[in-house]
Amino acid sequence: MSRWAEWFAEQRAAREEAGLQRTLRPRGADEDVVDLAGNDYLGLSGHPDVRKAAADAALSWGAGAGASRLVTGTTTLHADLERELAEFTERAAALVFSTGYQANLSAVSALADKHSLIVSDAHVHASLIDAARLSRAAIEVVGHNDVAAVRAALAGAGDRRTIVLTESIFSVLGDTAPLVDLAAACADHEALLVVDEAHGIGVAGDGGRGLVHAHGLADQPHVVMTATQSKSLGAMGGAVLGPVELIDHLTNRARPFIFDTGLAPASTAGALTALRLLRRRPDLPPRIHQRGGELADRLGVPRSAGAVLSVPMTSPRAAVSAQAAALAAGVRVGCFRPPSVPDGISRLRITSRIGLDDERWARAVDVLVGVVDDHRRQS
Amino acid sequence: MSRWAEWFAEQRAAREEAGLQRTLRPRGADEDVVDLAGNDYLGLSGHPDVRKAAADAALSWGAGAGASRLVTGTTTLHADLERELAEFTERAAALVFSTGYQANLSAVSALADKHSLIVSDAHVHASLIDAARLSRAAIEVVGHNDVAAVRAALAGAGDRRTIVLTESIFSVLGDTAPLVDLAAACADHEALLVVDEAHGIGVAGDGGRGLVHAHGLADQPHVVMTATQSKSLGAMGGAVLGPVELIDHLTNRARPFIFDTGLAPASTAGALTALRLLRRRPDLPPRIHQRGGELADRLGVPRSAGAVLSVPMTSPRAAVSAQAAALAAGVRVGCFRPPSVPDGISRLRITSRIGLDDERWARAVDVLVGVVDDHRRQS
Repeated sequence: MSRWAEWFAEQRAAREEAGLQRTLRPRGADEDVVDLAGNDYLGLSGHPDVRKAAADAALSWGAGAGASRLVTGTTTLHADLERELAEFTERAAALVFSTGYQANLSAVSALADKHSLIVSDAHVHASLIDAARLSRAAIEVVGHNDVAAVRAALAGAGDRRTIVLTESIFSVLGDTAPLVDLAAACADHEALLVVDEAHGIGVAGDGGRGLVHAHGLADQPHVVMTATQSKSLGAMGGAVLGPVELIDHLTNRARPFIFDTGLAPASTAGALTALRLLRRRPDLPPRIHQRGGELADRLGVPRSAGAVLSVPMTSPRAAVSAQAAALAAGVRVGCFRPPSVPDGISRLRITSRIGLDDERWARAVDVLVGVVDDHRRQS
Repeated sequence: MSRWAEWFAEQRAAREEAGLQRTLRPRGADEDVVDLAGNDYLGLSGHPDVRKAAADAALSWGAGAGASRLVTGTTTLHADLERELAEFTERAAALVFSTGYQANLSAVSALADKHSLIVSDAHVHASLIDAARLSRAAIEVVGHNDVAAVRAALAGAGDRRTIVLTESIFSVLGDTAPLVDLAAACADHEALLVVDEAHGIGVAGDGGRGLVHAHGLADQPHVVMTATQSKSLGAMGGAVLGPVELIDHLTNRARPFIFDTGLAPASTAGALTALRLLRRRPDLPPRIHQRGGELADRLGVPRSAGAVLSVPMTSPRAAVSAQAAALAAGVRVGCFRPPSVPDGISRLRITSRIGLDDERWARAVDVLVGVVDDHRRQS
């Protein structure tokens, strides 16, 4: 066996030993399960208007953008989505990327370099961690939501350009960042604050405008917001929102923007239509919290600021087994297992989504309460 | 002005001074120009079957995949595309990503770590350069297509796991890599060879199977192939192809795969239908070379192994001005300007695409010959 074949085999054996081996399980278009595993928080991916907008765009524009955004991959759909995302969140400008991952990679790696210091919350998403690594800046990881530690790190930055990384709502624990205090710390030290609103847009703040907006920070030029069109907007792609100078800089310097094909017209149009629906229906986001609150209370776990509720399990295997029990009863939930958890604790991952009638939701809640009770009895 | 505002202003002034400032120009759905700027080499993005497949998928599945591939973002469409990509290229297995950028980031960063050595051709794409940086491996950049330098670097690797990075057809210069010699060097040193076939699939080799296949390397387990669905397949997304153990490893360890929403159903179905069209029409790829050869001869520049012809210009400004002259005459071409060129020389970037009737092609060739002649007279 060659050296690489040996390494692959060792790596796989170690994953199996730890209960962490994963395989892909394709799903069909019309499965009869209640899907509480995905990130389609508002149920807009399957909304008839959103489906139709995506289909019409594929018919009118073709299946792909055909080139990078700076060549000919920018359609009027991209421009419309950028303008309306900026209007909705009350930010000056927006730039749309193929994925949320590449939005985060771009925002950080085009701003920071080896002459910079990045101060990162310990719980930020993999894409922000990779973005910081890619930038080649010095990286200081501070305790979760520890504003004093952020201030101390910024005070020690000397003459380096500084950037602080956080999320508005953290994906695993569902808690929020102290955005007002972080923004003040950044303003005091002339640092930029990058806030990932992947789990905030469509979920939190006035009509789903996110927490940067809710905290009155939308007009602050030192606050860089990133977002995704693949969660509450039901489609695909990412975005960076902020001052015009920032967007101009990213357009010219962000490698994962410049050297990438533009977001497909169908995804762009789907996200645009979902955004328009959300703007007409400010009553939708609060309904996520109503369901999430009910479910958290029934399961005896803390409520989440976002749409995802996580329920600690005793081991990765116990999490997988509880997930299988739920699926056997017609409810699909996710699992958080290492490396997707900041603290090594495996969890069930349950989305308190809407776009699902009350009866199916109530049945799903009963199933999950039973599954979690069983798990607790067995452990 | 704050420190960051000052920095943005300085950066922009430097770009303007160098003639490198870029802005986005949205295009409409039905512009009456001959588009030789994009990467839709076979014209399949707009093929009626491809448009319809993308539209039908959006209607049946919704606008988004809804979750990461390992949660519920893998549909039967993704599984079909992976199986058929692997069959077509005669590789053992395939994994589909949201973008080609993330396919490259994933392939390299999940294989290499700080105990590895990456030996990279000087001309590889930005996404491979970023991938190498992200991996935190030691990086040795060797001269373009210099196999002896690759062998020397591998010989000096000691007990580190080693990976060599190249492209089958290089995007800017349109030349090919010495894949057989590189694969032999890698086999001798137990290294992996990563070959980006972004510009090879659908363009080069038997029926567009690419150059890994053409050189009889498709069954070599130490050859890792990456590809994109956004160029000749007319849609969006990327792929990694290789042995089953590699694909299993990436599924479990590649962060830009695990922590990203799956490719949208419309893009997946569009690429799948384009691939099926390509498999039925092995006569299409040679037609790209017929057109490219004719154009190269008329322009007096070397022929390209790929679909993109690049014509050196005397400066970034001259390139932009020639591009504008072509557009005014109804032909859209691209520009290569720093940082998109390996040697700092700006160029016109012209796609010898098909899916465009002979008369329009002939007219476009005449326009381009005139524009390039003008440029040469003026310089």
